[in-house]
Amino acid sequence: MHFEEHDIIVAPATAVGGAIAVIRVSGEGSVECCDRVFRGRTSLAEAKPYTVHYGEIVDGGQVLDDVLVTVFRAPHSYTGEDGVEISVHGSGYIVSELLALLVRHGARMAQPGEFSVRAFLAGKMDLSQAEAVADMIASSSRASHSLASTQMRGGYSTSLAELRSKLLNVVSLLELELDFAEEEVEFADRGQLAEMLDSAACEIERLCESFRLGNAIKEGVATVIVGEPNVGKSTLLNRLVGEDRAMTSDIAGTTRDTIEAMCNIDGVMFRFVDTAGLRDTDDRLERMGIERTQRAVEQAQIVVQMVEAGADGEAEPVSVTDEQTLIRVVNKIDKYSSACAMVEDGNHDGKEGGDVIYISAKNGEGVDELRRRLRATIDTEGVYAGESVVSNGRHYEALQRALEALLHSREALVEGLSGELLSEELREVLRHLGEITGEITSQDILNNIFSKFCIGK
Amino acid sequence: MHFEEHDIIVAPATAVGGAIAVIRVSGEGSVECCDRVFRGRTSLAEAKPYTVHYGEIVDGGQVLDDVLVTVFRAPHSYTGEDGVEISVHGSGYIVSELLALLVRHGARMAQPGEFSVRAFLAGKMDLSQAEAVADMIASSSRASHSLASTQMRGGYSTSLAELRSKLLNVVSLLELELDFAEEEVEFADRGQLAEMLDSAACEIERLCESFRLGNAIKEGVATVIVGEPNVGKSTLLNRLVGEDRAMTSDIAGTTRDTIEAMCNIDGVMFRFVDTAGLRDTDDRLERMGIERTQRAVEQAQIVVQMVEAGADGEAEPVSVTDEQTLIRVVNKIDKYSSACAMVEDGNHDGKEGGDVIYISAKNGEGVDELRRRLRATIDTEGVYAGESVVSNGRHYEALQRALEALLHSREALVEGLSGELLSEELREVLRHLGEITGEITSQDILNNIFSKFCIGK
Repeated sequence: MHFEEHDIIVAPATAVGGAIAVIRVSGEGSVECCDRVFRGRTSLAEAKPYTVHYGEIVDGGQVLDDVLVTVFRAPHSYTGEDGVEISVHGSGYIVSELLALLVRHGARMAQPGEFSVRAFLAGKMDLSQAEAVADMIASSSRASHSLASTQMRGGYSTSLAELRSKLLNVVSLLELELDFAEEEVEFADRGQLAEMLDSAACEIERLCESFRLGNAIKEGVATVIVGEPNVGKSTLLNRLVGEDRAMTSDIAGTTRDTIEAMCNIDGVMFRFVDTAGLRDTDDRLERMGIERTQRAVEQAQIVVQMVEAGADGEAEPVSVTDEQTLIRVVNKIDKYSSACAMVEDGNHDGKEGGDVIYISAKNGEGVDELRRRLRATIDTEGVYAGESVVSNGRHYEALQRALEALLHSREALVEGLSGELLSEELREVLRHLGEITGEITSQDILNNIFSKFCIGK
Repeated sequence: MHFEEHDIIVAPATAVGGAIAVIRVSGEGSVECCDRVFRGRTSLAEAKPYTVHYGEIVDGGQVLDDVLVTVFRAPHSYTGEDGVEISVHGSGYIVSELLALLVRHGARMAQPGEFSVRAFLAGKMDLSQAEAVADMIASSSRASHSLASTQMRGGYSTSLAELRSKLLNVVSLLELELDFAEEEVEFADRGQLAEMLDSAACEIERLCESFRLGNAIKEGVATVIVGEPNVGKSTLLNRLVGEDRAMTSDIAGTTRDTIEAMCNIDGVMFRFVDTAGLRDTDDRLERMGIERTQRAVEQAQIVVQMVEAGADGEAEPVSVTDEQTLIRVVNKIDKYSSACAMVEDGNHDGKEGGDVIYISAKNGEGVDELRRRLRATIDTEGVYAGESVVSNGRHYEALQRALEALLHSREALVEGLSGELLSEELREVLRHLGEITGEITSQDILNNIFSKFCIGK
């Protein structure tokens, strides 16, 4: 991508398939470029900014479409540049013809995210806010929308800025000491310094820890359903997502590969993974499926272990890590009156310790209780209240590197390292924190971030 | 649908999946409705029409999104009513939350085409123009875009209006005669009347005839590829559309069902139909496939009959109707040097009379010539020049009924029918013509037309 340029870029800003489509143009001369193909009552070049104009797009005497054109003028636009939005009839043909026409008149097709790059470079938003724009567009639940919205409105940009400024202050003091090296003074009180580093580490650690929640909300809470063949895992998946996503039959081993389906439970997306039933088998394909099940369990945040009501013996417990939640489900209570009776009694907290849910995936009984239990694993109160929660993998990595460098300097402090080396360590912390909001960027970082954007943003 | 109402309707105007999405609101009080959820520098209610405002959509204290809002005021809007367009980040979640929010503030979800119904009822466009809006959105080639564009800009509305006014004039004269019935005068000269009816019939007939072209351009020119098993029909289909649409193999009978694929040849969409090879067979599934081939041939406008180069004997000629075009193709010239030599000589016009094209579907030789031959069957000169071409099935039917009634009155005229009955016949013609542009409409007609529109238009 060519950064720091203001040439005219153009891209469709909407998907094709609706009643209308919007084409976005930005850059120096973009209004004049559009004016050359626009025929209306007023010329766009003379139009007041933030006004809308009805007219026709004309291509060599032929009318391409009736349009509404909005004119923006620098610096009060998304990109901070002059810009135009053209609203056309939502035909793929019209959109592509208009793009080609504008390119013939001096625009070029925008790269993915190029409008947002310009917004960032114009100082309209910091890097984490620009990234939040992409998250905003991709948000599909109340929780993921909340995360993106908080981040777009500044999110932890402010607390990171405060953190950086405190650290920068320390670094300045340390570097001031160097100027007075011969006098061996310490402007930066080592005790206060240690305290300050501890509190910074604490803050960064908290942000790092929030990534588990943030990532789960953004990507969908990975929830794997496991159990022996034919206990009804696929039937439960279909019941949870409300459609026939997975093929079901009464033949054990119907599900071979892992099958995923998304489902919104009270504002949070869950990514359910239906798996091949676990059993000893000589069938090669089935064994491959079971291996995939095991991988899915490792990657899951919630493991739903399913057994059949009235089944002989106990199901071998699935082992989960400290970070995973295990929910045990007894299925097919519709087939077993004794299990049914237990449900009616509300008496499910026998020897399993109250964490077993009795359901019928077939007729839906008990599934609402399972939904509640799943949803309760995700605490969204803070998210909805606008607390800082990290949901961006790049930020998380930068925070981790910052924390590492910070703990390193903390150690160095204890070991009585010289102010010079200490300040170098702290500059490393600052660099990692600065990457998040974009105070420190490279072409590579920008390319990497914005290439994941959609066209037209 | 509730017609003649001006309550507030809302719908997404763009598809979800782009950087932005646009929500459209129209009706009395729509600006004030949006104002209640908008927080910006100015209130929308006080905003000048055709201005764009940056701000936030707020739902009970929570910010849903940063938006751009455009305000329209009656009568200068698409619907002729007050209206608002809200441009949000292109997330399905945000769109559905905003729709729900506006509904809670007094709007209701629009029916498909309801914005255009209002535009029609407000006299912004006639019915055929409103229908052209839907065609415009669906247009996917230069030719189908041209058709829709001409129709949207008035198309044959003007010539139909002239026709109607001439006929109405005659009807008036005939009905005037009734007032003077006792005097047995003829205000309408029967000779001139006959002439006028003939010219009207001629005009309507021309429009009716244009439907074949118009419909082909709009729906794609139905082009069926037939031939014995394994002559390379599927390979040709894939070559023409540039993708692996149909499964191919060297096993005769690979294609069982008819397979369709669209392809734009120089501005015109062709709908290619690959068929099961024609041969005598006892296989029940294959016989079913062959029956489907025969139906596809009946419905086609162009039949491409394919034989293999060097094949023994002549292929049984496929019989086509006068309205169909037969193009004969010899395939696999790559395998037969003699056929190749013929291509190099340019000497293909032997006993077949010059209508055979020699190709290699496998390596693409000769396929461009086939494309040219296919494209030449569709004369788009008039379409591009903006001539009246009927592409709407409803219009075609109305024109046919009008023509029928017209010819009926012409006959009645010869038979010396009374002016009274003649005028009744002519009123029938007027009624059918009036249905096209909407001078004469019923709730049923409107419902039927606009229910096929997309939401938000």
